Amino acid sequence: MAKKSNSTDKNKEIIGSLKRLGTQIYDQLENGVFPTINMPSRSIDNINYDPNLRQYVLGEKTVTRSSRNIRHLKPFTQLAWAALFSNELTFHKKTSTLRDVYYSAQAYNMTFKNQQESNNIITDLETAIGHSREEFHIFPEERSAVFGDLTIEYTVPGYEGKTMNLSAHPDGVLIGPALTSSKFAKTSADKIIAIEKGGLFTRFIEENVHKKHNSILVLTSGQAPRQTRFFLRRLSDELKIPLFIFTDGDPWGMHIAMVIISGSANAAHLRNLNTPDAKWSGVWASDIVKYKLPSDPLDDVDIKRLHELQKDPRYQEDPLWQKEIKTFLKIKRKAELEAYARYGLTYIVDEYLPTKLK
Amino acid sequence: MAKKSNSTDKNKEIIGSLKRLGTQIYDQLENGVFPTINMPSRSIDNINYDPNLRQYVLGEKTVTRSSRNIRHLKPFTQLAWAALFSNELTFHKKTSTLRDVYYSAQAYNMTFKNQQESNNIITDLETAIGHSREEFHIFPEERSAVFGDLTIEYTVPGYEGKTMNLSAHPDGVLIGPALTSSKFAKTSADKIIAIEKGGLFTRFIEENVHKKHNSILVLTSGQAPRQTRFFLRRLSDELKIPLFIFTDGDPWGMHIAMVIISGSANAAHLRNLNTPDAKWSGVWASDIVKYKLPSDPLDDVDIKRLHELQKDPRYQEDPLWQKEIKTFLKIKRKAELEAYARYGLTYIVDEYLPTKLK
Repeated sequence: MAKKSNSTDKNKEIIGSLKRLGTQIYDQLENGVFPTINMPSRSIDNINYDPNLRQYVLGEKTVTRSSRNIRHLKPFTQLAWAALFSNELTFHKKTSTLRDVYYSAQAYNMTFKNQQESNNIITDLETAIGHSREEFHIFPEERSAVFGDLTIEYTVPGYEGKTMNLSAHPDGVLIGPALTSSKFAKTSADKIIAIEKGGLFTRFIEENVHKKHNSILVLTSGQAPRQTRFFLRRLSDELKIPLFIFTDGDPWGMHIAMVIISGSANAAHLRNLNTPDAKWSGVWASDIVKYKLPSDPLDDVDIKRLHELQKDPRYQEDPLWQKEIKTFLKIKRKAELEAYARYGLTYIVDEYLPTKLK
Repeated sequence: MAKKSNSTDKNKEIIGSLKRLGTQIYDQLENGVFPTINMPSRSIDNINYDPNLRQYVLGEKTVTRSSRNIRHLKPFTQLAWAALFSNELTFHKKTSTLRDVYYSAQAYNMTFKNQQESNNIITDLETAIGHSREEFHIFPEERSAVFGDLTIEYTVPGYEGKTMNLSAHPDGVLIGPALTSSKFAKTSADKIIAIEKGGLFTRFIEENVHKKHNSILVLTSGQAPRQTRFFLRRLSDELKIPLFIFTDGDPWGMHIAMVIISGSANAAHLRNLNTPDAKWSGVWASDIVKYKLPSDPLDDVDIKRLHELQKDPRYQEDPLWQKEIKTFLKIKRKAELEAYARYGLTYIVDEYLPTKLK
């Protein structure tokens, strides 16, 4: 098993990128020119879906922030500060949130109009150095979790070299900075199962899905946060095992699976946040018919969303998507994962899951 | 340290309560009378705040569900089914969610109009047997977490007798059925710190608040779910240590603390979900002034809410509440926990927290 994501190496790489950005500014100053920062443009006309990478990417257009331009001066300074702050975080192995960044700026007499402005600057920094903010230690709220036979080795301060098996706590452990920066030491799992909802995650643990199906179970808690998508990609790549995704049977559940598989346009400037070979395993529209699931009518917003997804390039890849969208639009019904409980609480594990994993 | 919450004993107690309910129905049938179920009324005029218990309680009024009354026949049957289903869950040590209950009914040819109806029946069952649904194994979504030096001993199937120290995973472990049913074996902690937000929870772990302040850290993720409130009460009672609560400085944050301390009117039929001796430690309105925190203006909804809370009996207990409500209304500002980052990321841990714990 590969151990390529050594967090200390990763930290060095990030600090290297940040340093290059800083050196470039210093060099320009020494050469007597107004410093500038170049980066790919994130405007909509520069975001394209790449069928080879199976994700959105940025095109050739670039933008320049020049300290010579009075309108650029503020975002230029803010970006330089964000690089400084991220460097401190990464160097000291401390984490922060986007909210913290906004307030922390004040400790440096750096002002942001509102959090939207500081969020944008952090995205600029991601684009400029080509790394995600999680890599330079700015994390979202934690709310997703994992369970299964995987022994990890921590790299965070105070825990270096300590190991834990992710089946130690049968309610699941949180997916946070310590987990995503850990090395994967040992597993018996041969697949990953991602689940949208907490109730089902607990059911799967109670029914020993991790043992019966040699699987690592990941709770996404709705739309998977970026660090969870990064973690899923790492699991799949480094352990070389497939990922199966179970969501509610409606356009929103389907899209939770799609974002795990093909990412989002918002993250077109980043890599390794999607798992292109992952499979959406259900609840399909055709499952609602096949299993006669208790279902609710699609409402107008659902139908509008299905028509949008029908045209989305990510949904052109695999004929499964178009087929299921058509079935949704035909039957005009949606069903939740919990709907399988109509056949008894363990039906989903005993009957549905084995069929779907085949 | 007391180990009173042995889950197996608890399961026996619940099964005993459910059996008594069933036996009562059978006895009435044998005696040739239409079976009835009696329970305290949950109508608003029967919910009173009890200053001794420091929580809402139900009064003397009762309601009767009689199988003789054609209008009662459906809820009577649904309640009997809910008792049967809960008995199966508890007996087999399996958990379920309210959503699962709604769908599972169909496996028994029991019909509920919608989930609201099945939720109400579960609350009826809580009221009839005087135990919370978590005790008969119907749980909410998991989203809160814990971290700190507490060794627990599991009682759930497959993990009986296994122990885990809650500082094993530095992102925190989920608060779910396995955790809340565990025995508390060993701790060095002398206090509990509950925190509303994930970013701060991670900051506290990184800054070693658990060591510096000998504390168990609990992330409530906003309004604490009932099982988290039950867990906080158990921690405080069984370990005999105080609980400090940190929330955002606004009426909503204040009320998150209040519900942990004095419970909610919705849970007037239950006990042990609140921790009356817990302290709301901030962010107070007066902290916004004292620490010159970055703040936002209160909007109309905030002000309306403050006027409501001013009259709420739970806010009459401790003069602190009335004082802080008045300050909020005077300064007309609110501030988040993250606002302390204006003094640097570690200020909240190095300066603010020690002051507040004194």
